[in-house]
Amino acid sequence: MNQIGIIGLAVMGRSLALNMADHGYKVAGYNRSYEVTKQMVEKNPHENFIPYETLEEFVKSLEKPRKVMLMVKAGKAVDAVIEQLLPLLENGDIIMDGGNSFFEDTIRREAYVKRQGLHYFGIGISGGEEGARKGPSIMPGGDCEAYEEIRSILENIAAKSEDGTPCCTYIGENGAGHYVKMVHNGIEYADMQLIAEAYLVLKHIGKFNNQEIGKIFEEYQKGELSSFLIRITSEIFQEMDDMSTQSLVDMIKDSAQQKGTGRWTNMEALKQGIDVSMIAAAGNARLMSNKETRKTAEEHYPRIKIAKIPNHETLIEDVRKSLYAAKIIAYAQGFDLLKQASTAYDWNLPLGKIASIFRAGCIIQAKFLNDITRAYEHEKNLSHLLLDEVFEKRVISYENALRQIAAQAMLSGIPVPAMANAISYLDLFTKNHVGANLIQAQRDYFGAHTFERIDKDGSFHHEWGK
Amino acid sequence: MNQIGIIGLAVMGRSLALNMADHGYKVAGYNRSYEVTKQMVEKNPHENFIPYETLEEFVKSLEKPRKVMLMVKAGKAVDAVIEQLLPLLENGDIIMDGGNSFFEDTIRREAYVKRQGLHYFGIGISGGEEGARKGPSIMPGGDCEAYEEIRSILENIAAKSEDGTPCCTYIGENGAGHYVKMVHNGIEYADMQLIAEAYLVLKHIGKFNNQEIGKIFEEYQKGELSSFLIRITSEIFQEMDDMSTQSLVDMIKDSAQQKGTGRWTNMEALKQGIDVSMIAAAGNARLMSNKETRKTAEEHYPRIKIAKIPNHETLIEDVRKSLYAAKIIAYAQGFDLLKQASTAYDWNLPLGKIASIFRAGCIIQAKFLNDITRAYEHEKNLSHLLLDEVFEKRVISYENALRQIAAQAMLSGIPVPAMANAISYLDLFTKNHVGANLIQAQRDYFGAHTFERIDKDGSFHHEWGK
Repeated sequence: MNQIGIIGLAVMGRSLALNMADHGYKVAGYNRSYEVTKQMVEKNPHENFIPYETLEEFVKSLEKPRKVMLMVKAGKAVDAVIEQLLPLLENGDIIMDGGNSFFEDTIRREAYVKRQGLHYFGIGISGGEEGARKGPSIMPGGDCEAYEEIRSILENIAAKSEDGTPCCTYIGENGAGHYVKMVHNGIEYADMQLIAEAYLVLKHIGKFNNQEIGKIFEEYQKGELSSFLIRITSEIFQEMDDMSTQSLVDMIKDSAQQKGTGRWTNMEALKQGIDVSMIAAAGNARLMSNKETRKTAEEHYPRIKIAKIPNHETLIEDVRKSLYAAKIIAYAQGFDLLKQASTAYDWNLPLGKIASIFRAGCIIQAKFLNDITRAYEHEKNLSHLLLDEVFEKRVISYENALRQIAAQAMLSGIPVPAMANAISYLDLFTKNHVGANLIQAQRDYFGAHTFERIDKDGSFHHEWGK
Repeated sequence: MNQIGIIGLAVMGRSLALNMADHGYKVAGYNRSYEVTKQMVEKNPHENFIPYETLEEFVKSLEKPRKVMLMVKAGKAVDAVIEQLLPLLENGDIIMDGGNSFFEDTIRREAYVKRQGLHYFGIGISGGEEGARKGPSIMPGGDCEAYEEIRSILENIAAKSEDGTPCCTYIGENGAGHYVKMVHNGIEYADMQLIAEAYLVLKHIGKFNNQEIGKIFEEYQKGELSSFLIRITSEIFQEMDDMSTQSLVDMIKDSAQQKGTGRWTNMEALKQGIDVSMIAAAGNARLMSNKETRKTAEEHYPRIKIAKIPNHETLIEDVRKSLYAAKIIAYAQGFDLLKQASTAYDWNLPLGKIASIFRAGCIIQAKFLNDITRAYEHEKNLSHLLLDEVFEKRVISYENALRQIAAQAMLSGIPVPAMANAISYLDLFTKNHVGANLIQAQRDYFGAHTFERIDKDGSFHHEWGK
């Protein structure tokens, strides 16, 4: 009998199946088009992977309680496969959705499948193809008791952090796993945008060429910025084009798109009333890079004179500090959203644990996630990451560099929306006057909306300008 | 017989009813609680306003086709009143919703009421109590042909711009009127936030007191910034507190909230893929002003040293230019969203006309709206306001002031998120390199997402770091 079955054998499903097979699990595989299954077996034969041509045979081959992981495209395909599966499964069997499903869909499906007497898990999986194949970060959400049935297999195939801990932990009920994966992707957007801004500053203000920028990121990688994204960035800048004599990154079109999870994170932040301005800035920067009017606008507006810099060493070090301080603020925004969601959806999210499973396998893996875990271990009910002592100290000692770099970029016409929003967020979060008293006065003036006073309780209205 | 009926006699409904009565219309009034109706008649008797105790009498008193304007709370109350009305009305009668309804609700209601053989209009009304009473800006959306039945009354009660044109124009089918009102409110959020930031800069960098700030805004009001919000701001700063010897604005609690329409605008922008970062920044600033952690954070983080300014005159003039340049960008973002919605919802929105009806009656009324109208008259298919020749010139000549002010504020720890996002937007919109080539390289590296090249068509994948 097979111990687990995977439906959907495209790149992510295939990689995950082989990962499980490598770990000694007997894995059944099924794909809607059998052609895909056959190709997979021909290209990557594995003694523990057994392909099936029909869903019936596939299901029959599984040990009870049956464990079926869906690796199909998020959306209607998930609902369709669930409908096909339900008549073939029985009480206590477990359906897992390992795709990037919208968490509200997962909440709905979990309730539906539970009513049929089965268990349902929405499982966030991060790390791309390589992660799925060699060990991803895994974020399972669903029935807490049934989790024991799938825990060992998920932990075995997950990435391991430096201390050997699996990058997989039970996140919470119903949609919690997919929610955390969504916010993880939002943070990834912000992280990538910050690196892009550092690149613009180094290139246009520092006048470094790509090889030099690659080396600078290589140096960054040796210190506290150490992360998967910084490492691949250093490699990207040193990569030459096969088709020309240019640096490959220069041959890539300067335009990206905002997709599902990044946008969902921003929608959800609006719904929850949480400021995730850096994630929003990252999404907007991608949208703007795509704007049809870009070429015309470039012709209409003059170039801004680039601010002079006194010293290359200082610039490199200030950019490093900026990246680090801004990165802390981006994570603080993302975790603030998770904290709010934890209450709003009654999930009791283990925030420190969540940071710890991001330490390996996933795109945002970084050294400094240890510090987030430490922060929540130090104070379980920490209200905000920027109020953790260690982060506080780092932000305070690096914020001047961030302010200087962002100011220079903004004076030089270089777009740094994520850095600028990091500063604005910090100043809204920490300063004793943000000007909302004037906004309340205006609202009371034109709409009699009333205001609160600093010296008395209650709501007050004033007859302005009379 | 009465020419029009108003249901809901709270402050906005009452004011609108009296406005109509002043213009010689026979107005029927009905309120769910008759007590409210009686109080209104006692406090503001008007020969043209006739109160009714029952909905039946109210409907019977109306000329055919009957015109009924709902001025009830947005949400379920609107649906409830429609259900009560439908059995009493007949083919060809017209229901209007003058509240701040969500445009998707209006689209649904319009279709529903049309299926019953009646007409439905969603009507955006801006200007607060005073506007409703003396002449608001009116944005009607609904059946184009039936609009002729209500045009004259709406135009008569609307505000008039300096040249005498009514601030009312047919916006488009079904939800178009409420959509434009929503975006109007989003722009209002950005406008108010910009003024709050100017205030923070003048107070904390310029060290001006409130009286002086009031005078500075009074001067601003004499020039191209002239607008309702600048005028009331100048008055607000010169207002003393009745309960103390302080300036009233200093006694108001520094915290505001993000409400319906501002948040809807940001949600809708995400849905449409349009960057309205300044409206988002305004919403976030309000959210952050409310954060429970504010007081603790103020204690934990040291104050930043305020940047020195060489000259008060320059500061005042640079803040003025900043406000003006940033305001153009805020409107450009709002109108970019309207342009996208016009296509997405098939509304064919008259953008120039829409700007013209904002010229009087509403909260964002401003001199410079004439320029937006002119821009769209000059080029009907203008792709973006920042590509209009006149706005382009102003932005180019003022952007340096904006960059200087924002940079100084950010170096001084003063939150200026709307100004900073204005600059980032301008730089993303107009610069030839925004760094998305790196983001595409990263995405191809970790997820094999492929990229486009600048020299060849097609999608490419590279085996990075191999």
